[in-house]
Amino acid sequence: MDEPGPFRYNGLMQDLLQEISLLSSASATLDWDQETYAPSQSVAHRAKQLAYLQGRIHKLQTSGAFRDGLASLDPANQRELTHRYERATKLPQELVERDSETSSLAKAAWSEAREKNEFSTFAPHLTKLLEIARVKADHWGFEDEPYDALLAEYERGAKTREVAALFDSIDTELAQIAAAAVEASSSIPVDFLHGPAPLHAQQTLNLEVAESLGFDFSQGRIDTTAHPFCTTLGPADVRLTTRYEDHDFASSLFGVMHETGHGLYEQGLPASDFHLPSGHAVSLGIHESQSRLWENHVGRSRPFWEKWYPRAQELFPHLQGISLDAFLPAVNRAAYSAIRVEADEATYDLHILLRFKLERALLAGELEVADVPAAWNESFEKLFGFRPKNDTEGCLQDIHWSMGGLGYFATYSLGNINSAQLFEAAQKDPEVSSAFAKGDFLPLLAWMQKNIHRHGSTLFPQDLMEQATGSKTDPAPYLKHLRSRFIR
Amino acid sequence: MDEPGPFRYNGLMQDLLQEISLLSSASATLDWDQETYAPSQSVAHRAKQLAYLQGRIHKLQTSGAFRDGLASLDPANQRELTHRYERATKLPQELVERDSETSSLAKAAWSEAREKNEFSTFAPHLTKLLEIARVKADHWGFEDEPYDALLAEYERGAKTREVAALFDSIDTELAQIAAAAVEASSSIPVDFLHGPAPLHAQQTLNLEVAESLGFDFSQGRIDTTAHPFCTTLGPADVRLTTRYEDHDFASSLFGVMHETGHGLYEQGLPASDFHLPSGHAVSLGIHESQSRLWENHVGRSRPFWEKWYPRAQELFPHLQGISLDAFLPAVNRAAYSAIRVEADEATYDLHILLRFKLERALLAGELEVADVPAAWNESFEKLFGFRPKNDTEGCLQDIHWSMGGLGYFATYSLGNINSAQLFEAAQKDPEVSSAFAKGDFLPLLAWMQKNIHRHGSTLFPQDLMEQATGSKTDPAPYLKHLRSRFIR
Repeated sequence: MDEPGPFRYNGLMQDLLQEISLLSSASATLDWDQETYAPSQSVAHRAKQLAYLQGRIHKLQTSGAFRDGLASLDPANQRELTHRYERATKLPQELVERDSETSSLAKAAWSEAREKNEFSTFAPHLTKLLEIARVKADHWGFEDEPYDALLAEYERGAKTREVAALFDSIDTELAQIAAAAVEASSSIPVDFLHGPAPLHAQQTLNLEVAESLGFDFSQGRIDTTAHPFCTTLGPADVRLTTRYEDHDFASSLFGVMHETGHGLYEQGLPASDFHLPSGHAVSLGIHESQSRLWENHVGRSRPFWEKWYPRAQELFPHLQGISLDAFLPAVNRAAYSAIRVEADEATYDLHILLRFKLERALLAGELEVADVPAAWNESFEKLFGFRPKNDTEGCLQDIHWSMGGLGYFATYSLGNINSAQLFEAAQKDPEVSSAFAKGDFLPLLAWMQKNIHRHGSTLFPQDLMEQATGSKTDPAPYLKHLRSRFIR
Repeated sequence: MDEPGPFRYNGLMQDLLQEISLLSSASATLDWDQETYAPSQSVAHRAKQLAYLQGRIHKLQTSGAFRDGLASLDPANQRELTHRYERATKLPQELVERDSETSSLAKAAWSEAREKNEFSTFAPHLTKLLEIARVKADHWGFEDEPYDALLAEYERGAKTREVAALFDSIDTELAQIAAAAVEASSSIPVDFLHGPAPLHAQQTLNLEVAESLGFDFSQGRIDTTAHPFCTTLGPADVRLTTRYEDHDFASSLFGVMHETGHGLYEQGLPASDFHLPSGHAVSLGIHESQSRLWENHVGRSRPFWEKWYPRAQELFPHLQGISLDAFLPAVNRAAYSAIRVEADEATYDLHILLRFKLERALLAGELEVADVPAAWNESFEKLFGFRPKNDTEGCLQDIHWSMGGLGYFATYSLGNINSAQLFEAAQKDPEVSSAFAKGDFLPLLAWMQKNIHRHGSTLFPQDLMEQATGSKTDPAPYLKHLRSRFIR
């Protein structure tokens, strides 16, 4: 526990923030358990528990004591908690509890729908979630469109039309890069990547890599889930998840490097501020910049594989006849795929543009839930040139909507863009770049800790980007990175 | 959710009981996570969460609204919740929170002490826990000795002197049976039990057996822990744990059958009464009767192995040359061992007599914490004829004290005694006994569901025993069972 600072606390506010923090982290633990280990029939009771906890957190966050305590906080935490208080007080308690219970049940229905490839199992839940999202947006208020109000939950200070303008400014070039990359990749052999990948060997490599990047396993772990994620259950408890393919070790490894990026950010936050915004990540667009940094800028680089390829060859003997020069292009090969989380860097953002468009249309009432599969497949074909073979590989592939996470997807592309910009800035530090060239990525982590992690939510995402790199989110380094990686 | 009955509810009391139930089951989930998966450094925050939840449960259970709501309950739930209310109101809030946090930290310290074989790591925690236990006993009040007040937490209606009298009435005969069984066993070959037992093969057999006994895996699961246990996280969520030995599949299998016995009891309770005592197990002495029933009366019987031995031989090929007639005596062999959870039926209760004696002495202030290892080893030598090779295999072997569970151990021997008495009564039903002889144990489960499980806590343990078997806890069937199994 940190010492009370000059104006960070009064006693009551400290107790309140502590209580909210204990309840939120308990709720996160129940959520994690539901995703990882909980037996199928436990979901109804779990939904009640989560609804109760969310309801109680909401009650505390909207109390008079909370409002009165705001004045005792330092300016950054005061700003963030006032914002949170204002948003929370705009939502009726009943809506908060209904929201939590609806999304618990929707997650289970989504999982079943995905297994059965049956959109109709999920559709009534999505309808309810959309209805709740619209009511929430109305309560919160918005400038241009309901999407603004939801986006604000994930990306402090962002406006939908600015994000749309950013995407519009690069969508043509992204599509061109993707097409050129896919075309150029068609001659790169990749079959050798696929070969026996025993679970234990995959887990060994994943753990060794995550640890070497700086992930502290005395404060975290990796479990197996259908949909990989990272969640924080306490100031020293960061949980990553991954999934495994029988014959493709690289899929799980890059997944783990991605989640490790999220985890390193969480482990780099000031633990003593766990009950304050200054101890929490600032936005999803910044969070994703960290996951993409370790997955792509590190994980698909030559220095990384110069260091790790011998170990991979040891664990997966089918690689032993393959040179690093053959291997490296294979893990940087671009191909159109139906599944976002398996997409390569060159085509990834096309998946986001699709979701961003559909979400806005759903929220604006321009698209009906029942029409989602058709709209998905049609838009998908325009972007990728083929149709997903079923809804499980189409509109049912992502967990986000089932969690009520409408407005979330846009932050993935923001993350990609931020990622390249931060990597470029970090590489200007000669200590970072010379170590990087030798396969030592700890100075890069130190740079991120200093320029991003330790700031928690004390700065707005765009101010944080400006302070760290000299400018707000700027797509130029990202496009440059994609061109240099894929267009030769 | 069940319908409000004629006098089971008023609205406020229903809400209160629901809230307590949600908080308790959330707390159980956090506890389970700490035992199974939580990273080492997460313990400090987890302790705070648990202390907070226990504190809040205590606050609700001692509220005026709770007291006022008691009158609206049916007689059995009213009796149990009034008892709980009275005990809870006797404890100050501060003590409850300190108790929870102390035991969370003590569990982690015990685990470390056990690993390092270093009693001094655990000793200061045990001192604190004892101090808290004494203060609690003083608050609760007791007739003869502080142990009474603690025992009441686990065994409704039991008195220490009655339990002591029961144990005194059989201790000589138990020691004689143990000695004769160990002597007779010395010529039984057992080495063939030990052989390659791959984790996956062990897990396969454990799951198949647990499922065939009636455990519903859509409402439960099995994980791995240092100390096996069973806990219930919701009305359809029962978690068992076990541990695995590399070369001894039987150790984990019998452990799983034991925990499955607990789990079947939990799954047999009325789910719609989850928020009421009528939906919860009545006592540990009854709980242990169920675990020992499936572990020993079923799991070490000839009909069980006539059914399962071929499958075990398939999974563990080193058994393939061994006949059932050679195998069966081996899993019923008696030997003095240092470890309680590995003890056979014939010697098990000696472990309990030792702990019961030391606990009473600790609580009465007749034994100092620092002297526990010496006292343990001395008493142990008297009972077993040798000394444990270290404290990890001596006074540090059990988790119970670290959880603050003083007064708990006596219920194990009560469970053994109840187990034989219930088994004998059930076997009088020709449907149960004829199915049993054919390796079909579901009628036995149905008998337990009807006579034990479905009653929840509506009857006192001794009244439940009397209703089910015709008499209160009676050691005769247990001694008869041990003699017939071990003295030939």
